[in-house]
Amino acid sequence: MVKARKYVVRKHFEGFPKRDDFHIVEYELPPLQSSEILIKTEWISVDPYQRAYNRKFPTPFDQFGFIVGTVEDSRKPRFQIGDKVVAHCSWCNYCIINPNEVNSKLDIVYKLPDLRGLSPSLGISAISAVGATAYFGFLEICHPKAGETVVVTGAAGAVGSIVGQIAKIKGCKVIGFAGTDDKVAWLQNELGFDKAYNYKTCNVNEVLKIAAPNGVDCFFDNVGGEMSSMIINHMNDFGRVSVCGSISAYNADVSQLPKAPILQLDIVMKQLKIEGFLAHRWLDRWPEAFEELINWILEGKIKIKEHITEGFDNVFEAFIGMLTGKNTGKAIVKI
Amino acid sequence: MVKARKYVVRKHFEGFPKRDDFHIVEYELPPLQSSEILIKTEWISVDPYQRAYNRKFPTPFDQFGFIVGTVEDSRKPRFQIGDKVVAHCSWCNYCIINPNEVNSKLDIVYKLPDLRGLSPSLGISAISAVGATAYFGFLEICHPKAGETVVVTGAAGAVGSIVGQIAKIKGCKVIGFAGTDDKVAWLQNELGFDKAYNYKTCNVNEVLKIAAPNGVDCFFDNVGGEMSSMIINHMNDFGRVSVCGSISAYNADVSQLPKAPILQLDIVMKQLKIEGFLAHRWLDRWPEAFEELINWILEGKIKIKEHITEGFDNVFEAFIGMLTGKNTGKAIVKI
Repeated sequence: MVKARKYVVRKHFEGFPKRDDFHIVEYELPPLQSSEILIKTEWISVDPYQRAYNRKFPTPFDQFGFIVGTVEDSRKPRFQIGDKVVAHCSWCNYCIINPNEVNSKLDIVYKLPDLRGLSPSLGISAISAVGATAYFGFLEICHPKAGETVVVTGAAGAVGSIVGQIAKIKGCKVIGFAGTDDKVAWLQNELGFDKAYNYKTCNVNEVLKIAAPNGVDCFFDNVGGEMSSMIINHMNDFGRVSVCGSISAYNADVSQLPKAPILQLDIVMKQLKIEGFLAHRWLDRWPEAFEELINWILEGKIKIKEHITEGFDNVFEAFIGMLTGKNTGKAIVKI
Repeated sequence: MVKARKYVVRKHFEGFPKRDDFHIVEYELPPLQSSEILIKTEWISVDPYQRAYNRKFPTPFDQFGFIVGTVEDSRKPRFQIGDKVVAHCSWCNYCIINPNEVNSKLDIVYKLPDLRGLSPSLGISAISAVGATAYFGFLEICHPKAGETVVVTGAAGAVGSIVGQIAKIKGCKVIGFAGTDDKVAWLQNELGFDKAYNYKTCNVNEVLKIAAPNGVDCFFDNVGGEMSSMIINHMNDFGRVSVCGSISAYNADVSQLPKAPILQLDIVMKQLKIEGFLAHRWLDRWPEAFEELINWILEGKIKIKEHITEGFDNVFEAFIGMLTGKNTGKAIVKI
């Protein structure tokens, strides 16, 4: 018998999640049934959507998340013992999954792509839902053209940092906003952003006048709210906004959403297109994104930073750290 | 020599336009030059964009607008004396236009389409930029499907009333919001909207729970602001919002735009697409819209109401009346 541990949400979050909203359950895994596989977790991903989706499920529920692990036992021929896999399951150290059972779009399990020597942790960072989010959310919604000006918020985060680098590969001018001076330095000095600013200490409106004198063509928005309104004011005719996240509002009371200057005047006058997306819209095309991202990483065109927390007992700390912007690059936990 | 009169804007509007922001200039028209045509105005259109675009030009400038008139003299073979024409020129009783001169997208002049017996005033109401706005802005951006639920704000206005009727033709359920009980009654009893509400006296959120229990698929937005945020909260996954206007904000100080609950959370979670447009994006396809709209009007599928003010000296009153919602249907002035 294998002893397993997992995080269970026992109380819906109010404002920022609290440690006490979770408890860790220890239990004995049952024997494998037909089609099931047993995975030993090696890496756990903490992501903003885990905050945003919290009220989609009645409590108590297993905290969902992506993991990278190794198959330790299998009753499913497609998965062999020793295979590395990526699964959307729970924050757990061991789990049993039936890859045939797809109850929601969140039931995802696939073999780790051939990372050609890169760390398996990339299976939940760059070469993952996160990479697919950056790749499709930017390219399919913003349709960037060489020479255009792109603004990215949450630019030092897992998705934003990849979006900015893809924009550079596509020949765009890239302006990033992040929340600490260290992140800003990393974006400019290591990732090749043309300009990066600390939104907490700059005047977004004033810096855009300087950094984007010809206006903004594409805006990849992770943040929402006041800042988005300000950036949208700087957009050019037929500008495209890809709305990936709204981290400024995830911890707000949904019945009392924050207010920001309205967008409609700009949307009409400049004929803007603003579109939101979830990466699994393109789930069948993720391998295409993974292939290209792996190439770019191996060619040195995309640099990946992982913000690694160690230990199963520290997943909550990694989660809250990510929500408060402590991470530069992708926040993950090594088990 | 022909004596002409026109409205000149001498002062940019602040808040609602004032009569004193305009003066009427009387002057002698010069003899026609090569390619020019002389038009005697019969109908003048007053529209929300005339408020919204006010600061696009330095003062003083001729107040722009669409007119229907008759060619009284012509040095341009394509236009014969007696031809009915539609022109985007000024609020004037006579004007000279050179159809070759296109300095901006607003320089438009074309022969009145064959209205097959309908009033020539339709050339600035249903069979005009207004009709094209409703037709393309709804069909090309919302892509309505039979059985879907469509919400229209400013539903009793020139554009909104046509959009709602096109939505009915396309087999949708249509919910309209307007600003008086008379307008609401007109929408429900005469235009065939499934439901209409007076947004000034209803709770938008509560009525949508009842009128759109399965959510909103398409939203044609003329208003913007708080109300738009509330309606967007009711939208379904992959909902489409066509942003046609933002009349709630046209009279606001642009540096101090009103605030409303942010949209980004819904945009992401429901993968919404919100797009603004100006009708001249499809200028080369306007005849296609005109043809179909004329058919629908003649078949009784679309009913048109014109809110007619009489007299050149009353154009300002018609304009401010339209901006304050006094019109049901298209506000026009008979000269």
